[in-house]
Amino acid sequence: MQKKILLTDCPDAKGLIAKITNICYKHQLNIIKNDEFVDRAQGRFFMRTALEGIFNDATLLEDLDMALPAGAERRLVASGRKRLVLMVTREPHCLGDILMKCYAGALDVEIAAVIGNHPDLGALVEKFDIPFHCLPAEGLQRAQHEEQVMALVDDYAPDYLVLAKYMRVLTPEFVARYRGRIINIHHSFLPAFIGAKPYQQAYERGVKIIGATAHFVTDDLDEGPIIEQDVIHVDHAYSAEAMAAAGRDVEKSVLSRALQLVLQERVFIHGNKTVVFK
Amino acid sequence: MQKKILLTDCPDAKGLIAKITNICYKHQLNIIKNDEFVDRAQGRFFMRTALEGIFNDATLLEDLDMALPAGAERRLVASGRKRLVLMVTREPHCLGDILMKCYAGALDVEIAAVIGNHPDLGALVEKFDIPFHCLPAEGLQRAQHEEQVMALVDDYAPDYLVLAKYMRVLTPEFVARYRGRIINIHHSFLPAFIGAKPYQQAYERGVKIIGATAHFVTDDLDEGPIIEQDVIHVDHAYSAEAMAAAGRDVEKSVLSRALQLVLQERVFIHGNKTVVFK
Amino acid sequence: MQKKILLTDCPDAKGLIAKITNICYKHQLNIIKNDEFVDRAQGRFFMRTALEGIFNDATLLEDLDMALPAGAERRLVASGRKRLVLMVTREPHCLGDILMKCYAGALDVEIAAVIGNHPDLGALVEKFDIPFHCLPAEGLQRAQHEEQVMALVDDYAPDYLVLAKYMRVLTPEFVARYRGRIINIHHSFLPAFIGAKPYQQAYERGVKIIGATAHFVTDDLDEGPIIEQDVIHVDHAYSAEAMAAAGRDVEKSVLSRALQLVLQERVFIHGNKTVVFK
Amino acid sequence: MQKKILLTDCPDAKGLIAKITNICYKHQLNIIKNDEFVDRAQGRFFMRTALEGIFNDATLLEDLDMALPAGAERRLVASGRKRLVLMVTREPHCLGDILMKCYAGALDVEIAAVIGNHPDLGALVEKFDIPFHCLPAEGLQRAQHEEQVMALVDDYAPDYLVLAKYMRVLTPEFVARYRGRIINIHHSFLPAFIGAKPYQQAYERGVKIIGATAHFVTDDLDEGPIIEQDVIHVDHAYSAEAMAAAGRDVEKSVLSRALQLVLQERVFIHGNKTVVFK
Repeated sequence: MQKKILLTDCPDAKGLIAKITNICYKHQLNIIKNDEFVDRAQGRFFMRTALEGIFNDATLLEDLDMALPAGAERRLVASGRKRLVLMVTREPHCLGDILMKCYAGALDVEIAAVIGNHPDLGALVEKFDIPFHCLPAEGLQRAQHEEQVMALVDDYAPDYLVLAKYMRVLTPEFVARYRGRIINIHHSFLPAFIGAKPYQQAYERGVKIIGATAHFVTDDLDEGPIIEQDVIHVDHAYSAEAMAAAGRDVEKSVLSRALQLVLQERVFIHGNKTVVFK
Repeated sequence: MQKKILLTDCPDAKGLIAKITNICYKHQLNIIKNDEFVDRAQGRFFMRTALEGIFNDATLLEDLDMALPAGAERRLVASGRKRLVLMVTREPHCLGDILMKCYAGALDVEIAAVIGNHPDLGALVEKFDIPFHCLPAEGLQRAQHEEQVMALVDDYAPDYLVLAKYMRVLTPEFVARYRGRIINIHHSFLPAFIGAKPYQQAYERGVKIIGATAHFVTDDLDEGPIIEQDVIHVDHAYSAEAMAAAGRDVEKSVLSRALQLVLQERVFIHGNKTVVFK
Repeated sequence: MQKKILLTDCPDAKGLIAKITNICYKHQLNIIKNDEFVDRAQGRFFMRTALEGIFNDATLLEDLDMALPAGAERRLVASGRKRLVLMVTREPHCLGDILMKCYAGALDVEIAAVIGNHPDLGALVEKFDIPFHCLPAEGLQRAQHEEQVMALVDDYAPDYLVLAKYMRVLTPEFVARYRGRIINIHHSFLPAFIGAKPYQQAYERGVKIIGATAHFVTDDLDEGPIIEQDVIHVDHAYSAEAMAAAGRDVEKSVLSRALQLVLQERVFIHGNKTVVFK
Repeated sequence: MQKKILLTDCPDAKGLIAKITNICYKHQLNIIKNDEFVDRAQGRFFMRTALEGIFNDATLLEDLDMALPAGAERRLVASGRKRLVLMVTREPHCLGDILMKCYAGALDVEIAAVIGNHPDLGALVEKFDIPFHCLPAEGLQRAQHEEQVMALVDDYAPDYLVLAKYMRVLTPEFVARYRGRIINIHHSFLPAFIGAKPYQQAYERGVKIIGATAHFVTDDLDEGPIIEQDVIHVDHAYSAEAMAAAGRDVEKSVLSRALQLVLQERVFIHGNKTVVFK
């Protein structure tokens, strides 16, 4: 008995659930969990079907292709460990949480390597017997630095790139190369406080709640599809530094939760938004 | 075009989603939203299918009965206003929230009548042109009092009875007569602080969080299937009275949310638990 | 025995707590609750002292004026019911919650009158025996309309004006006339989604959390000092309308909580921020 | 310039704030933050005063002792790193979070050693160059095992003992030896689900919220003074195992927050409750 996940993303049409689940039934696959969503404004259908049984991938996909409307995307994903490359700068909290969750088995993923533009986090990474590469950006053109990073990333062939407080802006070339596969944590409740120093901005505005946002990276800074967000309450007694300290716990938990959702194939990218089946 | 909701609750079996959605497709009904859950430990399947189209109820149900396993329960419910009878004692906050939400159209329901064992809330109910009946319990045996209440309730033939801070314990006879149709709000995060004076108990225990629980009423006091719960943070500075005051906002919002879920046919009773499709 | 609240807002200096509490002690006043905050960046001291005893206001304030540094503001406020005028347009949820809380005694305040620029909410207000005035803006210059509103407001001499979903922008003249006394509820988690149609903006951005913000009104739209904020989680299945419906419960509870804080003299305005002693 | 915290816990009396802050002022100490609470039912006064200046501890305490009523307890605590011994069994999540927070400097504490009754977590602890001692209980009387533990703990002379998922019940002798200095994390929202397997109990009851509780350990199992609690929402789709997995994040954050509060001297034990100045 194997477990696989069938992901369907196609123009909406009548009878899609019946057609897809019929094909699964015909293949004697048991549906463990089924989630669907129709974006009526856009006329788009999304379905995630967790299946159990003996799979003949080729004929299953063939049957689906016959049944689904033109413009359909469908993937049949085997449950199994994905590979990550993490990118970091100096702050350890998000990196540390992911390392610890992997160590404890709470996040079922292989961290192939960690790349930092500063050396600070190397010692922490190496405690967990994971390769750490320091690629400093000083003295390099942005394009030159990114070429080094991309070469290294490609060596590891990761499924996803996780920016665990990587404090550099990526070029459109970089983003294009890993489209839909770069996950970032932004230290504000987007779209509030886009850009640099969000906690300083939050302090100056006098907000009573601060937050964090995990999103896919696109060319527009802090504008990519949001995967997960959360917040905590603060008050007048929080300095910008105290907000940053309090915010770290939200950042790490939002990033870890977003990562878990992506790893479990629960997230569809839908234009500039996501469909997330929790 | 009509909208109806198909509710299926049956022993688990292979191909149930395919079979049911196929029948819907054959009847040219469009599935707006489908939710399903399998309790694997109990081998029980639950599905809520929101449908749109032209319904032939009799043949649809016939087709379903042919397809579903023995022991299946299925209901096809027309969207439409349910009727409530509310039961109250003296506290206005839950009653007031329901009255106001109905007035504003946020809760699509008909409040047929309000029954109080004290006269205090009559004036409030009558502002909204809803009948209020005061049935005092003083000087009556419990059974006698309940007979009066049941006679009155039955006159109104409500779909659900909502205990909006009705501070009397119901007899098994009363509960049996409206089985699965009585919704209560308990002023604690059950199963903590079962029974009387939960805020006093919470104060004495020194908890840092208090809550409220909406549940179906069964014979065991405060032990019925939980529909919805929520909490708020408190601290050492809250007296039992301050906890009660703070708790009222949670009580009212938990009861209103639970009621909304029930009215939208999102709640299955499953033994002593619920399956709630949000 | 009387209860009063002493509010001190002055340049920071050594020994302020000792000096103020000493004076209270000398006057044989018992401190029930004391809260203080120093904004070190701005060098400003804030203290709220809840007192009990026999007050000689004149000599107490005289003693304080001797002890406090130049530029100090201090107020001694008798506990007692404040007067409100509410301003509304068409949506009943915030108005309804305030009306119901006053009726239930959960908000100790006198609602002197409700002013609407549409007639829709008149029937609801009058259920509670409170004067409702409809002042339509159609066919009037903004200044003309506001003159009518201000004349009416001034007749009622309220302590605070509460904009309970009043959907018009106020002129600087209006804001200046009631500086620091106008409380607004904005239907987003400010500073995200400033301006019109925040739920539509939130929907288009694909956020996973929506919120509400209660703030004092200043000349800059949606930029006044924030008193209270809260949020709820949403997902891809929420349309803009569903977000608006879900948001109403947050809006009403945030506005009611902010109002309660202001009425209990827990809020200092501090530049474009607030200091709130909960 | 030094920073110290003055903690006062005494019978309530008039003028206590004035007297204490006066003495601080006389000693030319600046009050950075002052928090006080009076339990009126018990007639007890609590104050935490964060001070800055040049301290003469002996005369300061002498002055205080003259001013405070009989039965007063007061402590003057230098800011500085406390020493912890952690006790664990097999689960790494709470331990891992504390280790990582210490590594990152987010928790300013020295972890002197970790003691496990199983060897499983030794490798993790040693990554951080902290001594790990495995003291298996198998084949020993409870008293014998605890003697070994106490001997080891005493060698390290910690300020606090943190039970980071230590799955053994402690004897009254053990508890008495470290009274008020043992912090435990319980994997439920106490007082719900006292005792073993709280997630299984929560699953069986069908609750919609699960939580975690950090508390001081007393002789009564799970009945000690609560320091911090938090919850997360769950639904019918969570098995007992899924609840346990989801609960781990709450457990670790509640324990870390409680520990931070204790380390910052923000927690008074008050009978079977706590007073916590956040």
